[in-house]
Amino acid sequence: MTQQRSAHRSHRFHFTGGTAAVLLACSAALAAGPPAPATVKKPLTAAEVLAASTPADWRALDAQNTLYMELAAGRVIIELAPQFAPHNVANVLALVRGNYFDGLPIMRAQDNYVVQWGDPDGKKPVGAAQRTVAAEFERPLRGLTIAKLADPDSYASVVGFLDGFPVAADPALGRAWAVHCYGMVGAGRDNDVDSGGGTELYVVIGQAPRHLDRNVTLLGRVVQGMELLSVMPRGKGAMGFYQNPAERVPLRSIRVAADVPAAQRTALEVLRTDTPTFLAYVSARANRVEEWFKVPAGHIDVCNIPIPVRARAAPKP
Amino acid sequence: MTQQRSAHRSHRFHFTGGTAAVLLACSAALAAGPPAPATVKKPLTAAEVLAASTPADWRALDAQNTLYMELAAGRVIIELAPQFAPHNVANVLALVRGNYFDGLPIMRAQDNYVVQWGDPDGKKPVGAAQRTVAAEFERPLRGLTIAKLADPDSYASVVGFLDGFPVAADPALGRAWAVHCYGMVGAGRDNDVDSGGGTELYVVIGQAPRHLDRNVTLLGRVVQGMELLSVMPRGKGAMGFYQNPAERVPLRSIRVAADVPAAQRTALEVLRTDTPTFLAYVSARANRVEEWFKVPAGHIDVCNIPIPVRARAAPKP
Repeated sequence: MTQQRSAHRSHRFHFTGGTAAVLLACSAALAAGPPAPATVKKPLTAAEVLAASTPADWRALDAQNTLYMELAAGRVIIELAPQFAPHNVANVLALVRGNYFDGLPIMRAQDNYVVQWGDPDGKKPVGAAQRTVAAEFERPLRGLTIAKLADPDSYASVVGFLDGFPVAADPALGRAWAVHCYGMVGAGRDNDVDSGGGTELYVVIGQAPRHLDRNVTLLGRVVQGMELLSVMPRGKGAMGFYQNPAERVPLRSIRVAADVPAAQRTALEVLRTDTPTFLAYVSARANRVEEWFKVPAGHIDVCNIPIPVRARAAPKP
Repeated sequence: MTQQRSAHRSHRFHFTGGTAAVLLACSAALAAGPPAPATVKKPLTAAEVLAASTPADWRALDAQNTLYMELAAGRVIIELAPQFAPHNVANVLALVRGNYFDGLPIMRAQDNYVVQWGDPDGKKPVGAAQRTVAAEFERPLRGLTIAKLADPDSYASVVGFLDGFPVAADPALGRAWAVHCYGMVGAGRDNDVDSGGGTELYVVIGQAPRHLDRNVTLLGRVVQGMELLSVMPRGKGAMGFYQNPAERVPLRSIRVAADVPAAQRTALEVLRTDTPTFLAYVSARANRVEEWFKVPAGHIDVCNIPIPVRARAAPKP
């Protein structure tokens, strides 16, 4: 857990799956140099996989599909997920464009669970948006190309990634759904399944609460700034709600990135999850070859694969 | 995610495993009243399982095996795990009894990963303790009675609980090891496997970093006060280390509970993990019947089962 120095390398590490993908990444890294010998099988670290990636391995965030939450502490950036929750996402965009969230607070921080923001009184006018939107807990699996993980999952028969989001599926039911991993954003609701819609939003700040899967509409993911939300003082009330209104942390605003002047935007790009490079990245996280590791896990959980995000290089003139 | 009201109950929930255990808990709850009809199968919530528990379902923390970390923000309580790391635990007890940690800081907070404390310079005398202790990453499986979970785990062929700690095992190798769930405490090390020993300790504050299993010595678990550690401002240096020494958060002290005057101790008890009540609790967390839930997961991950802790009632005179 400290700096890596004076290592010895164990010979006990082993590899399951993903080696072919690692080779692909190796080849890509070497594409501009001499051809790699067919016997090269040196496994890469995740950092090496990313260093060897090409611009095509990354995608820019769509400004029409990106939210900036402005806190006193800084900007939190959320990528929305209309592929999972089109109507809830549309409603959140309408709420945001009506400045609904401006001045509303973070009012709940439950340790190892969620941070939540919205209107504590539930009465603020929603303008052109809807107060509630029907649940979008699942969607049809048909037509989706999921980058599937090889390892078993405790909760679902299929897990993987779709468009940068962790996803699970049940082929027997023909259904797919976004998964409650760290940083995922959902629409709080009351007991009625259709009582959500985005007027209250929460983000996962702890161990993946997978029991919420298929019970709440997930509609996005924090791609930058999680460290501003995850440190919110935990509320001492039931479910982590702040007992005293003075404890609440106000949001300055939430804006659609496309509505923010270009000079004030944060240009980010996200690693695509439908490429050999992504598979190599997953494999590198499952089979750590950094000197510090002595027994690479050889396996990986869908919620232990954070999607790399980086500043987007300015396009070349 | 908000208060539970105006519910309708879905009929889609289902149960896998643990029903017998739930019945056991039901019977216990009804033991003082009329005999329960054989057909009673009402599933319980986790809260109901705990409410129906008996004193024998709980165990008091052993003061000789409990640490109090005193921060300006309050007390963090750690239960040590000599069953997994006897020599590392003994060394931490020696360090603590030599007041080694007093005044040393929390110096690392990496988002969704770990908070770490110790000597940033690595030079403070260790007194009667050892500076390093050989690794205790695993232990023999033989003789252990693990409360096994029924669901698959992404990383290990067997997962469950032993003496209140999450554990994994490989029966083919005959090995068992503690698992990096939220709140688990380990001994940081450099690249040499035997370079740990407890002079630097870390606690998991995010998604279970299971790739650390069998790579670091786990020696305890935070049983109270995690919310004081999990909110540490994240360090902006590499691996979450604080770049500026002024950012570090000093520990007032760490003490063995047994060395603290009785009046200053925190009397806690922890749910035993080798009882039908514990199995019922696990089942209730896997199969949520609270009105809010519409599709109980029917499954559970070893790191999504926090062990209940409560104030210990004063013994009856």
